[in-house]
Amino acid sequence: MAMVCLSDFEAYAKKYLPKIAWDYFAAGADDCTTRDENILAYKRIRFRPRMLRDVSVMDIRTKILGSEISFPVGIAPTGFHQLAWPDGEKSTARAARAMNTCYIASTYSTCTLEEISAAAPGGLRWFQLYIHRNRAASQQLVRRAEASGFQGLVLTADLPYTGKRRDDVRNGFRLPPHMKVKNLERAFEVCKMSPLDASVTWNDIYWLRSLTRLPIIIKGILTREDAELAVRHGVQGIIVSNHGGRQLDEGPATIDALVEVVEAVRGRVEVYVDGGIRKGSDVLKALALGAKCVFIGRPALWGLAYKGEEGLQDVLRILQDEFRLSMALAG
Amino acid sequence: MAMVCLSDFEAYAKKYLPKIAWDYFAAGADDCTTRDENILAYKRIRFRPRMLRDVSVMDIRTKILGSEISFPVGIAPTGFHQLAWPDGEKSTARAARAMNTCYIASTYSTCTLEEISAAAPGGLRWFQLYIHRNRAASQQLVRRAEASGFQGLVLTADLPYTGKRRDDVRNGFRLPPHMKVKNLERAFEVCKMSPLDASVTWNDIYWLRSLTRLPIIIKGILTREDAELAVRHGVQGIIVSNHGGRQLDEGPATIDALVEVVEAVRGRVEVYVDGGIRKGSDVLKALALGAKCVFIGRPALWGLAYKGEEGLQDVLRILQDEFRLSMALAG
Amino acid sequence: MAMVCLSDFEAYAKKYLPKIAWDYFAAGADDCTTRDENILAYKRIRFRPRMLRDVSVMDIRTKILGSEISFPVGIAPTGFHQLAWPDGEKSTARAARAMNTCYIASTYSTCTLEEISAAAPGGLRWFQLYIHRNRAASQQLVRRAEASGFQGLVLTADLPYTGKRRDDVRNGFRLPPHMKVKNLERAFEVCKMSPLDASVTWNDIYWLRSLTRLPIIIKGILTREDAELAVRHGVQGIIVSNHGGRQLDEGPATIDALVEVVEAVRGRVEVYVDGGIRKGSDVLKALALGAKCVFIGRPALWGLAYKGEEGLQDVLRILQDEFRLSMALAG
Amino acid sequence: MAMVCLSDFEAYAKKYLPKIAWDYFAAGADDCTTRDENILAYKRIRFRPRMLRDVSVMDIRTKILGSEISFPVGIAPTGFHQLAWPDGEKSTARAARAMNTCYIASTYSTCTLEEISAAAPGGLRWFQLYIHRNRAASQQLVRRAEASGFQGLVLTADLPYTGKRRDDVRNGFRLPPHMKVKNLERAFEVCKMSPLDASVTWNDIYWLRSLTRLPIIIKGILTREDAELAVRHGVQGIIVSNHGGRQLDEGPATIDALVEVVEAVRGRVEVYVDGGIRKGSDVLKALALGAKCVFIGRPALWGLAYKGEEGLQDVLRILQDEFRLSMALAG
Repeated sequence: MAMVCLSDFEAYAKKYLPKIAWDYFAAGADDCTTRDENILAYKRIRFRPRMLRDVSVMDIRTKILGSEISFPVGIAPTGFHQLAWPDGEKSTARAARAMNTCYIASTYSTCTLEEISAAAPGGLRWFQLYIHRNRAASQQLVRRAEASGFQGLVLTADLPYTGKRRDDVRNGFRLPPHMKVKNLERAFEVCKMSPLDASVTWNDIYWLRSLTRLPIIIKGILTREDAELAVRHGVQGIIVSNHGGRQLDEGPATIDALVEVVEAVRGRVEVYVDGGIRKGSDVLKALALGAKCVFIGRPALWGLAYKGEEGLQDVLRILQDEFRLSMALAG
Repeated sequence: MAMVCLSDFEAYAKKYLPKIAWDYFAAGADDCTTRDENILAYKRIRFRPRMLRDVSVMDIRTKILGSEISFPVGIAPTGFHQLAWPDGEKSTARAARAMNTCYIASTYSTCTLEEISAAAPGGLRWFQLYIHRNRAASQQLVRRAEASGFQGLVLTADLPYTGKRRDDVRNGFRLPPHMKVKNLERAFEVCKMSPLDASVTWNDIYWLRSLTRLPIIIKGILTREDAELAVRHGVQGIIVSNHGGRQLDEGPATIDALVEVVEAVRGRVEVYVDGGIRKGSDVLKALALGAKCVFIGRPALWGLAYKGEEGLQDVLRILQDEFRLSMALAG
Repeated sequence: MAMVCLSDFEAYAKKYLPKIAWDYFAAGADDCTTRDENILAYKRIRFRPRMLRDVSVMDIRTKILGSEISFPVGIAPTGFHQLAWPDGEKSTARAARAMNTCYIASTYSTCTLEEISAAAPGGLRWFQLYIHRNRAASQQLVRRAEASGFQGLVLTADLPYTGKRRDDVRNGFRLPPHMKVKNLERAFEVCKMSPLDASVTWNDIYWLRSLTRLPIIIKGILTREDAELAVRHGVQGIIVSNHGGRQLDEGPATIDALVEVVEAVRGRVEVYVDGGIRKGSDVLKALALGAKCVFIGRPALWGLAYKGEEGLQDVLRILQDEFRLSMALAG
Repeated sequence: MAMVCLSDFEAYAKKYLPKIAWDYFAAGADDCTTRDENILAYKRIRFRPRMLRDVSVMDIRTKILGSEISFPVGIAPTGFHQLAWPDGEKSTARAARAMNTCYIASTYSTCTLEEISAAAPGGLRWFQLYIHRNRAASQQLVRRAEASGFQGLVLTADLPYTGKRRDDVRNGFRLPPHMKVKNLERAFEVCKMSPLDASVTWNDIYWLRSLTRLPIIIKGILTREDAELAVRHGVQGIIVSNHGGRQLDEGPATIDALVEVVEAVRGRVEVYVDGGIRKGSDVLKALALGAKCVFIGRPALWGLAYKGEEGLQDVLRILQDEFRLSMALAG
């Protein structure tokens, strides 16, 4: 089976992953409308291709928060990579480093952030975190991320409670016994998955800021109002995201929300977007609409499920090639 | 089979109810366009979710015409509950009381309103009525509703004649011999189902008002013009409704009509809506567009068909949980 | 099998007619886009239903060109009724008279207009004609229509050449040997079906006017410009029609074209519409948009195919009942 | 099997061509969105048909760059005709001459341009070319085209690199050993298919102009900005084209782009369009929107696949008949 485009990896993962793992990765909230809209919204955007421009040499490198990456596609935070591949997040870290791009490791990793760091020294990595009821736990994670060389903190803002993903409820989803949410093991028991603090507000950004010198990127912004608040509270970056359509269903597609966020931000901080990227031309659209870089979630998991580190590199390489070709053809 | 969302109850009811009963409950007029539009119109409405608000404590109680209910979802009037569950409307009344919400009992109940009342003393209930050619019959029903402790009268305005529901015609739908439209037994024979007065006009509201001290809620309003007339004729509440798409086909979806009705009413009376509510987020959308409370029709029948009183409570509890979660996630 | 709505007759006809006959009646030009649009366009129109109006007594009679019909649905000209029922147009004429409505007999009938006339003396009938290259033939038909008591002449304007109906080409459609286009037998041989004059222009209306005292109704108008020309050339009525989508594909649906024609005509002549009427509510929509009356084409043929005269009466009666009910429910 | 419309030829070709050849001809870039949009966009355009105009005599001839063709449909450049029919481009040339229309021979022909020319002396032909890294190769092709009697040069502007056609990648598409890209054999080895120069800019038009007295037509323009540039750089004609949706996916449909190009050009040069033409009415739409002539790509290949020269004539004849009929019926 030739792996020609990202859908091929999706088909592979659907076929070979255990149903409970596939369902967990694929899940969207409620009717999965937003999950699917993320993709459909890209299809509604049309290029105006220009001709006869010199496209013999193109530079697709970019910088995010000052660090160069080889092309504007990073890896979004997703949980439980061992469900996709035995080495889990360690493979992810290696693939990201090999492709010279940024990997945002999730709090809900099945490896510790120290293990992730050790697996691919020198790679560009950010750490994704929530604010827990037990603030000491959050503080401890920040310290560990700093100590392990992570270069940014991504605060997820859209998960005061976990969204309702019907298939996970039906499957009674839980990690197999031999996997652990290792980052939280020391701090507390996390089977329930939500010792998160639903009372978090914008002021808690100041608290987080007080703990660290790392840049803070906020993830989950979908409106101009919240974008303005994010800038005013001093974040360094915004990821326009709806959590892959896994939280509130029937909100906007991220590529649609990107437009208003970029407009509100007026260049004061960097804006990124995740959700629905399936082709190199999607990346080009996101950049044309003002994103500095995009992040992929599920496609990275499909790559892992295919061949671990190598499969994820395949996914990234396909996106890179498609992106470069789209740029050339669009002039 | 896990009952995770309302569609699960629908699937159950479709599988286990006798076809003639399922068809009767599911029926829409003509091509069922409006019945289906009621649902589709909700899907077209998008949230603008806000982040980082303190959603650790939320109060989802509300008041309708001065009575508190535990969350803004009541039970719309639908007929013939014994087709769904042996105890019929008595089970409905008990479930509504257990969940502390409002139940609008239909004239076309298979229990008398006295039986309904006795089944769940103290529950908040309104009584739905038509104006019959035989006005004495209507008057008698009003007296009985008052005497049985019903706290509101819901006048159905959209049924001068019964809509054309093709499957019911094909099935030759009629109640099985052991069920009766008990509320009307004393007054007249109702096999034909329409001794209703097609000559009723707005002035008859005054006649109804003269019979009772109970608040009058008018059900079936879909335009700003009729909303204005309703307010001017002194009703206390309006239910935006198209009878579940069972009367005139190809009118507006109720959630679309709600907007113009709310605008026309300008807060002078309470406005409710029924039709198409299938998820907690639908409730949130209706409230965001100005409804004080929503009412569910078919989903209540699916709950009954599943496990009677208990099944209906399941349905209401799912809606309540989903509604609370949507509120939290939408900020 | 209960015949509840017009689709039931369609299903019956599709099942029991010879394929070649079904295909001929069902055919649309090219991709059948316009044929199907005629129906879809009705579905896009929404009612704004009004409540609490006295609908106990409703008068659905109307007058077209001064003649009363029992309800605003007539029978559009379609060819070759013997393909649907042995008695052909004689049955059509009887059904129309029984229901007290207008029947427009086609030039391409399988009975002569004298036979049609004799079959149902006293019925309201118009005669549809083309202008033939052989003008004497046309003139002769006008004389015969007058002599046989037809009360209007319907000039078809949209068939300078026959549209391309793929299935008819594939089937090599032609009348079975025992059927004849009897109206034209005396004048000339018509196997080729198109000795029509493609050079006809508006001025030929004057020529037609000079031949007869009967009112002239022009059929096939779809634009305001042509509506204005029709009025200026002295016709008494306009049928907005696209020949059931059998001529030019991808023109407008008739119900959409009706709006601009009615606006252009400003009441100077009566405007009718055919194409896509499948329910009583479609009739109501057409009237609400300015049509004086609608005409049905294929549904009449389905009725004939079902049970001849009786089947067509069934079709008309269903439309009548549905129309009356829609009026009542829409207020 | 009756060949009634172009879809019949498509079905035939799909059935009888080797999969690898069918896939190559059918391929679109990425998700094939633009390939399909080319067709769908025509369906969204509606006629406003006018009646009672004298359509007994119609002249459908036209002139492109001064040469008369029998009707406004030419043959767009497509590669590798021997994949469809043994005689390849020689058959194409003969069919075009027989129908008295223009054939644009592709650089990627499986016959040399001299062979094409010799196969149908006197036919109107243009030659399509790219600008190669090896400019001498391009220059040589221009000379040969002139010498062989081609009357125009069509410069393809939208292929700095080949688009990503997934099926071709999966199939490992390459020409069978016995076929050659004969035009390029003398100049260089072309298995890689892209010794094209991606650094070409508008200024290279001047270079091309310096080589030849033939008119230059630029193919692949989709925006008003590029149309203006094309005119300013002295081309004689513009073909609005997206390479059949085989290059950049999710650009505009050509019939949509035509409108803005025609507006920008304001009659200064001739504008043509290709992509999505499947019926005679599509031709009429393109002309109504300002195209001087249209070109067909895949339908020509289907015709070849059906019966070579004869099959392609069938395709052209059907389009001609449909075009004439559409003109008559649209008035």
